[in-house]
Amino acid sequence: MKEISGGITAPAGFSARGTHCGIKRRGKDLALIYSQSQTVASAVFTTNKVQSASVKLSRENLEDAKARAIIINSGNANACTGVRGYKDAKVITVLVARQLGIKKEDVLIASTGIIGQRLPMDKIRSGIRYLAKGLKLNGNTSAAQAIMTTDTFRKEAAVRMEIDGKEVSIGAMGKGSGMIYPSMATMLCFITTDAVISKPALEKAFRVSVDKSFHRITVDGDRSTNDTVFILANGVAGNKRIKSGTKSFNEFQKGLDYILCEIAKMIVKDGEGARKLIEVRVAGALTEKNAKKIGFNIANSPLVKTSFGGKSFNWGRIASAAGSAGVNIMENKLSIFIGDVQVVRYGCGIGYDKRKARKLLAGDVIKISVCLNLGQKECTVWTSDLTEKYVRINVGYS
Amino acid sequence: MKEISGGITAPAGFSARGTHCGIKRRGKDLALIYSQSQTVASAVFTTNKVQSASVKLSRENLEDAKARAIIINSGNANACTGVRGYKDAKVITVLVARQLGIKKEDVLIASTGIIGQRLPMDKIRSGIRYLAKGLKLNGNTSAAQAIMTTDTFRKEAAVRMEIDGKEVSIGAMGKGSGMIYPSMATMLCFITTDAVISKPALEKAFRVSVDKSFHRITVDGDRSTNDTVFILANGVAGNKRIKSGTKSFNEFQKGLDYILCEIAKMIVKDGEGARKLIEVRVAGALTEKNAKKIGFNIANSPLVKTSFGGKSFNWGRIASAAGSAGVNIMENKLSIFIGDVQVVRYGCGIGYDKRKARKLLAGDVIKISVCLNLGQKECTVWTSDLTEKYVRINVGYS
Repeated sequence: MKEISGGITAPAGFSARGTHCGIKRRGKDLALIYSQSQTVASAVFTTNKVQSASVKLSRENLEDAKARAIIINSGNANACTGVRGYKDAKVITVLVARQLGIKKEDVLIASTGIIGQRLPMDKIRSGIRYLAKGLKLNGNTSAAQAIMTTDTFRKEAAVRMEIDGKEVSIGAMGKGSGMIYPSMATMLCFITTDAVISKPALEKAFRVSVDKSFHRITVDGDRSTNDTVFILANGVAGNKRIKSGTKSFNEFQKGLDYILCEIAKMIVKDGEGARKLIEVRVAGALTEKNAKKIGFNIANSPLVKTSFGGKSFNWGRIASAAGSAGVNIMENKLSIFIGDVQVVRYGCGIGYDKRKARKLLAGDVIKISVCLNLGQKECTVWTSDLTEKYVRINVGYS
Repeated sequence: MKEISGGITAPAGFSARGTHCGIKRRGKDLALIYSQSQTVASAVFTTNKVQSASVKLSRENLEDAKARAIIINSGNANACTGVRGYKDAKVITVLVARQLGIKKEDVLIASTGIIGQRLPMDKIRSGIRYLAKGLKLNGNTSAAQAIMTTDTFRKEAAVRMEIDGKEVSIGAMGKGSGMIYPSMATMLCFITTDAVISKPALEKAFRVSVDKSFHRITVDGDRSTNDTVFILANGVAGNKRIKSGTKSFNEFQKGLDYILCEIAKMIVKDGEGARKLIEVRVAGALTEKNAKKIGFNIANSPLVKTSFGGKSFNWGRIASAAGSAGVNIMENKLSIFIGDVQVVRYGCGIGYDKRKARKLLAGDVIKISVCLNLGQKECTVWTSDLTEKYVRINVGYS
């Protein structure tokens, strides 16, 4: 497996493009992804009870697990827009289908942006025409730009691997930069692959990868009205069909895990106003679920997140967050480390090399380990620091 | 029932004082409350698994439900300090007992401040001597000052009522200004009363009042390592003993509810960097538990909290937070109001009087109502807005 460029158009048979159609005042705001042939498709949607019209319609259109195109707009979430919003979404998929000469049920749709306003349909109509005519085999960059809102950089990744002597690629683009829990900033991710893979195998690999990536960051995939992750496999690579439990499957899983973790970490790193990626590993737990619960309680604590902007290491806030996760822990067994520097043993602060710790805390990536010393299970989650800039961004956004 | 001045020394038979002994660089940091006679006492402690030595010792000393004095320090939480921290707490209670000529088991202790550092015992020793000799019947103000950390104002309340022709008073002082969930900023509250009341009646009234006040604010009483609420009833008022289910009991309950809600709202209003008190009422729920869950999901949302600093009303964030609380709601039945101005009906934004709304949003207290239109139950919770100042305060605090 090796990392390659090309994002969502790295896999064979996919084209894409992004443009500015006028939903946002400035910047690209409409993207189209197209597969030259039918795909096996799957999705993970938000579990929010208030859902965007785009989510509702895509869920319906995916019932047959097939798709040929995805249309994505930024700047407007098309959420809380009622029946009219749903009809708007339907009109958009019909327009895309007509332009591309495919079935309307084979068009998926995703939106991100402000809630409660109707989409500017005329602008979108001409945007779709422009995109459909100008699809490019290397259109990944403009598409990745067009799905950004408060994101400060594009989020793309792609890998190539050999399966049965054939070159198979996976590509992805993502969006998301709201960072703190309960996050309602939308997280979107679009994954393409040219692998030939059975529907159950794709489903399985996809769920596992999402669980290891987007469900381990505090931009919690199941929270906003619009969160969506799509995967399309068009089979153009021509490999022997990948089935669950085979060596090829494990190869594919590894590639998918890598891609999704890369995008997930980019989203955290681009947390609104964030300067640091913070990795929180909770080890020595009785169950992985306990470790994850404690990990998130630490990673979601505003007091912990703000403390990484200060000069000293405020481990007391981490200990307190570990104790308030609703999981039984033993205070007198608790250890805390920054990188490999131990700062807490048996629940008490201990003397440690302050110069070394300061150096570790000054980096772009900070690794915190909390050891409960109760069992063998562990879980790692990612978050970012909380800065004044986060507040400035979110006061202004409307 | 009428509001009076005097805080914790308003009820007869209580004296108090606060002083600067040197735990903090500046400002008062040690307070003592004393009752001239034995009291019936009760407490609510943090449910955090990591607990301050002060919490551990007070829990032991309260096993007989009796107390004569409370010693409180700010600037140091005496948490994560292991066996030595516990011994320090014990020495402090022994010193207080000796100075006041009471039993050491009748001394309660509470602490707030930085985690993981030992208390400066010499400074505290001389502070205790000073306080014990200088207790004042109107010492409420200096005591209330001495328990502050990042608080920007003293939090005191007192009421007087007539029970069986006798004047009965309840007084309180509180501390707490960290505001966002999961909050680990300590919340402390000390309540005194001269009522004659049975132990079960006191316990019952106390639990009910705490549930209506501190458990309805997002400075969640059960989260930090040090959270503590104490109540002492010394019986000096000489009324007929208050028992559960009587008219006197209801009177007492009303007074206690009032006092605790006042302190709770002061804590929210003094949220770090906060400018507004936000009241979130969730109505039309199937159960009160559901209403509370949704209320807290809205009140704890950083995106909702930051939005009150902006100029427009971002109801989309409120709708999204209502939908992601893990409670079944119907999007197409959802209504949202600012004060009495309806902004969402059937899950969609509607035209509303923007000038009136802006006026309501400009006030110090903002009332938001969310109606689920599913049932008859409701719950109100309080929070504050999230500002850049919150981040500045918490980056610096260590």
